[in-house]
Amino acid sequence: MSWISVSEARNASAVGRSIEVRGWVRTRRDSKAGFSFIEVNDGSCLGNLQVVADGSLANYSDEILKLTAGCSLVASGTLVASPAAGQASELRAESVRLIGTCDPETYPLQKKRHSLEKLREWSHLRGRTNTIGAVMRLRSRICDSIHRFFQEQGFCYLHTPIITASDCEGAGELFRVTTLNLDQLTRGGRAVDYSQDFFGKSAFLTVSGQLEGETYACALSKVYTFGPTFRAENSNTSRHLAEFWMVEPEVAFYDLSDNMRLAEAFLKRILRDVLATCGEDMAFFDQHIQPGLSERLAKVIEQPFQHMTYTDAIRVLAGSGEPFEYPVAWGTDLQAEHERYLTEKHVGGPLILTDYPASIKPFYMRLSDDEKTVAAMDVLVPGVGEIIGGSQREDRLDTLLARMATQGLNEADYWWYTDLRRFGSAPHAGFGLGLERMVQFASGMANIRDVVPFPRYPGNAEF
Amino acid sequence: MSWISVSEARNASAVGRSIEVRGWVRTRRDSKAGFSFIEVNDGSCLGNLQVVADGSLANYSDEILKLTAGCSLVASGTLVASPAAGQASELRAESVRLIGTCDPETYPLQKKRHSLEKLREWSHLRGRTNTIGAVMRLRSRICDSIHRFFQEQGFCYLHTPIITASDCEGAGELFRVTTLNLDQLTRGGRAVDYSQDFFGKSAFLTVSGQLEGETYACALSKVYTFGPTFRAENSNTSRHLAEFWMVEPEVAFYDLSDNMRLAEAFLKRILRDVLATCGEDMAFFDQHIQPGLSERLAKVIEQPFQHMTYTDAIRVLAGSGEPFEYPVAWGTDLQAEHERYLTEKHVGGPLILTDYPASIKPFYMRLSDDEKTVAAMDVLVPGVGEIIGGSQREDRLDTLLARMATQGLNEADYWWYTDLRRFGSAPHAGFGLGLERMVQFASGMANIRDVVPFPRYPGNAEF
Repeated sequence: MSWISVSEARNASAVGRSIEVRGWVRTRRDSKAGFSFIEVNDGSCLGNLQVVADGSLANYSDEILKLTAGCSLVASGTLVASPAAGQASELRAESVRLIGTCDPETYPLQKKRHSLEKLREWSHLRGRTNTIGAVMRLRSRICDSIHRFFQEQGFCYLHTPIITASDCEGAGELFRVTTLNLDQLTRGGRAVDYSQDFFGKSAFLTVSGQLEGETYACALSKVYTFGPTFRAENSNTSRHLAEFWMVEPEVAFYDLSDNMRLAEAFLKRILRDVLATCGEDMAFFDQHIQPGLSERLAKVIEQPFQHMTYTDAIRVLAGSGEPFEYPVAWGTDLQAEHERYLTEKHVGGPLILTDYPASIKPFYMRLSDDEKTVAAMDVLVPGVGEIIGGSQREDRLDTLLARMATQGLNEADYWWYTDLRRFGSAPHAGFGLGLERMVQFASGMANIRDVVPFPRYPGNAEF
Repeated sequence: MSWISVSEARNASAVGRSIEVRGWVRTRRDSKAGFSFIEVNDGSCLGNLQVVADGSLANYSDEILKLTAGCSLVASGTLVASPAAGQASELRAESVRLIGTCDPETYPLQKKRHSLEKLREWSHLRGRTNTIGAVMRLRSRICDSIHRFFQEQGFCYLHTPIITASDCEGAGELFRVTTLNLDQLTRGGRAVDYSQDFFGKSAFLTVSGQLEGETYACALSKVYTFGPTFRAENSNTSRHLAEFWMVEPEVAFYDLSDNMRLAEAFLKRILRDVLATCGEDMAFFDQHIQPGLSERLAKVIEQPFQHMTYTDAIRVLAGSGEPFEYPVAWGTDLQAEHERYLTEKHVGGPLILTDYPASIKPFYMRLSDDEKTVAAMDVLVPGVGEIIGGSQREDRLDTLLARMATQGLNEADYWWYTDLRRFGSAPHAGFGLGLERMVQFASGMANIRDVVPFPRYPGNAEF
């Protein structure tokens, strides 16, 4: 008798097969007619398989009538067309074997609905809930879609280093990585000697793989990274994590227009895949998390993304009459409230902002001919705000060195990065997409801590 | 005129098309008849596209005759069938535009061949060499194959945390992650107060996502992680990195036999994909790195993997008459020399060793009925040794707690891990594959530092 997933067993085409499923009890309901309905879930999909256990089964009163939520079991029998609404099949059980018990007195996931906040305390168990299970399947599907999109176009998947001695943004708060004995430091009274540390100098967790990604784009033309990145910022918000995953494509011979086209095609591909393949989970989000979600996403796919320069955006914001908390003026960075206004109210869909002031952007972005703006782009989407940030990179050695000097960066620290502009320099561009923001956008989940298996934020590295 | 990759342009089916390529000069050769052959590479494949530039081009003497290795250019024209051996097509150029110069006096990658050791000093440029370019394309292909294998079978891709307060192996040397000001520590003279650190306690870089992976396997049934892992070991060998990528599938209701089947199918799938899709790069490795490689890999795919218990392996080793450096006795861990003997000389192919002594394996492996061995498995392959390590996990709460006590682990630190055995416990199993070892196995590359873009090892976090 072959073991199949609940997802497969629930398919109408499986009716008639003799099979086995293995999973966990969600609920048990006993009929007065002397048999029981057991809802079994194995996480392969949102829905449960209804297992009908007849009172004639040998262990019916000893085991089956004692099954509670969370018990693991193996059930086998024949799949039959279900008379019940909303399910194509159910399992007429020939055997139901209890594998692991689950004490209802102590099991945290009782039938009652828990808040997402409460579930975070049980991050080791919350994957068993409908919401978090659906989020994790969606997240996996998005990851797959990301790899498909780039691999199909001949991009090389690149692992840039997690531990690094360089700081991509020239700023940013970093986590130090060390094997120095901190207790010893408190005894010595001497200065910290990083030459004794594991890497022979100060080392940190990466905030972006971009600079290293550029080195390989200038060798293999099309590359993308997809890995964890880190921010040691003391941000206790629903939008920030200390550890999150980022996708960063980088392409040689691309300019800003190519880059914008790639970003739009990329986002649309992910949404198309999600809508096409995560039907049941997406319907769940639409019903329980964010009504109207699927329709909004479908609209994003259909429309061409709007484009607007930063300068025009400032004009729009200044003339909007909206009571913004932060004032709007050319040369200041846009706040979340401004981005949300532009994408949600002004455009009502995705918006790509371009040509930001050089003074508020990192040294590596290409200076435009006006010498005031850089070839930067941010993609804003309703409900999330900035989801993608990118730019064409400065490929001219002299301009790059001048920008580094302006921003107080030490040229010697970036010898390898500037080398790319010495030896066969080429225009190139790229962007970064935060995976968690993308999962939020696609699911409607409000808090970023609920779209990652084990969130890391100030004060929390549990599990 | 459409921009296509060198890989596409070199295809016989592209002959006749008017196209543009963008890339870097590998070599230039001038004919006495007044035209030049420029070998152009863009990293999309190992081979170059031969661009034929006629002396009649406007910039022929000013630019084309000055092109040197490493210059970037854009060439357009018509692809024609090439009369030269070994290439289907060549580009009859209508235009060759120099984009970025490359001073031959200072460019490190001259025509002469550099040692792989030397190339590591230029890790930002070495992707432009045949060997490292081929390795990175292969690595990307292997990653893709890994995702394909699991996604096609309904596994959920899971991101387990990189920063963690738990130590999976109960041992292992860890990198500390901190935002404490170390300089301040040397002044205070007080004990280190980790409650003031970012996460409110000591935090480290993960050595494995397994324990967290188990939590989601006990919710979604089939999961796999694929992310960076870390070892702060002072190992300066050709087999160890401080930072490397690991794939870790974990499946609920799997026993050791299921696990072995999965591991064998997994390795074979990767090799099949590599041989089917990386033809040119594999031929390069076969010719320049490890003669006979492709044939050896093909043999691995054809044969069923051999199985042997640890106890039998000890018997084989003790009776082998080989002059091992480390003595062989039941209860001691196998050394690389033993593993290599078993897989290379005794079996002559992949070998799965099972049922290791409990005393030399971690607490989470399932204790067998003999109470002396655990349901562990190591997959050994010729040329590399151990490439996969895995086990069925201990799913019985009492046995697990007893093993933890024996190994001196603090039960309270693992409250969430043991919870999985309290609430609907189920048999489950999984394994880990080191990506870099897999790339070495598939490419024949001798040093692990040459199969990762930017290697991290003691004293080195450059780039």
